[in-house]
Amino acid sequence: MNSMEKINQFRDERNWRQFHNEKDLALSLTLEASELLELFQWKTSEEAKEKPERLKEELADVLIYAYMLADNLNFDIDQIIAEKLVKNAQKYPIETSHDSREKPK
Amino acid sequence: MNSMEKINQFRDERNWRQFHNEKDLALSLTLEASELLELFQWKTSEEAKEKPERLKEELADVLIYAYMLADNLNFDIDQIIAEKLVKNAQKYPIETSHDSREKPK
Amino acid sequence: MNSMEKINQFRDERNWRQFHNEKDLALSLTLEASELLELFQWKTSEEAKEKPERLKEELADVLIYAYMLADNLNFDIDQIIAEKLVKNAQKYPIETSHDSREKPK
Amino acid sequence: MNSMEKINQFRDERNWRQFHNEKDLALSLTLEASELLELFQWKTSEEAKEKPERLKEELADVLIYAYMLADNLNFDIDQIIAEKLVKNAQKYPIETSHDSREKPK
Repeated sequence: MNSMEKINQFRDERNWRQFHNEKDLALSLTLEASELLELFQWKTSEEAKEKPERLKEELADVLIYAYMLADNLNFDIDQIIAEKLVKNAQKYPIETSHDSREKPK
Repeated sequence: MNSMEKINQFRDERNWRQFHNEKDLALSLTLEASELLELFQWKTSEEAKEKPERLKEELADVLIYAYMLADNLNFDIDQIIAEKLVKNAQKYPIETSHDSREKPK
Repeated sequence: MNSMEKINQFRDERNWRQFHNEKDLALSLTLEASELLELFQWKTSEEAKEKPERLKEELADVLIYAYMLADNLNFDIDQIIAEKLVKNAQKYPIETSHDSREKPK
Repeated sequence: MNSMEKINQFRDERNWRQFHNEKDLALSLTLEASELLELFQWKTSEEAKEKPERLKEELADVLIYAYMLADNLNFDIDQIIAEKLVKNAQKYPIETSHDSREKPK
């Protein structure tokens, strides 16, 4: 099974799709991103990286919610990433964006 | 190329890794999650889903930052998702979590 | 003492201003807003309001960080609110914004 | 008029309370906190402080939503701040918390 299938199996075994309206999934994604960010609170990147286990777990939670929301919306993850990179490339051409800190994506 | 390779190619062509310290990547991930959540502000899930193009773009931005942070930290995305699902399964056994709304993941 | 004075007394008694750079204060403000939002996860407003004690605490945390950041930046809270309301009134004139859900502030 | 009265006058003139359910107010508060945090993205505190006007506006937006949510919930802002500071003082006694970076509030 790939990651998406494992995630869906997990929620289907618990019959949790009934709770997974897209608004609450997007809300939950924000909460998980904040829990990840909390590992960097009052710290430098270097200090935060001293606890990789917590970083792994919180980043995984972000990904799991992002995958569930994509699945609910019938989005193919690789496709929406590819399409967004095309748009970003138009917005930030290599020539003018090289070494530029203005909103790097 | 898979999604991770495309994302890394995009940032390497612009020499952007120099800006991508992990604290700012985690911060940016939170910002992108908020931009996605904004599409649901004052709306029901059904109303928000009427604009799938914006949802695609903002969810892609979340994924792109999550992938970059994983790459910076040398995490394998499929592996950290699999490990987290194992932990979640221990925390939320099927028998007791079925149909339960208490913090479904 | 007013609220701002109490908050500053609290952090000064612990000598915490040394940690309170503005970037981490803004980051912390986001984290506290998320903890408040978490009380609404998978719930309606009505269900969330059944636990007013937690709501009080998390909203207070948001306010405390907002006040500290304002103090660090030498902003007068009542003044920046008043100035923003003037701008909002220009952006959302009463005649055209009445009953309109488009980004009500 | 004090700040709370001005904020309420603003929303009542536009008849916006009908949209201001507490869940969306809490969601909006998170979005505004993120917009404030965005001013620090890829920057140091010092660099971000070079644009005080934007900081003023975004911090004011955070405060306005926090005040509206407090009003909806019938919380007195000064009172919930005072009560939370008492709790924080118990959790972080001056003697043991002095100079300590562990989750300063």
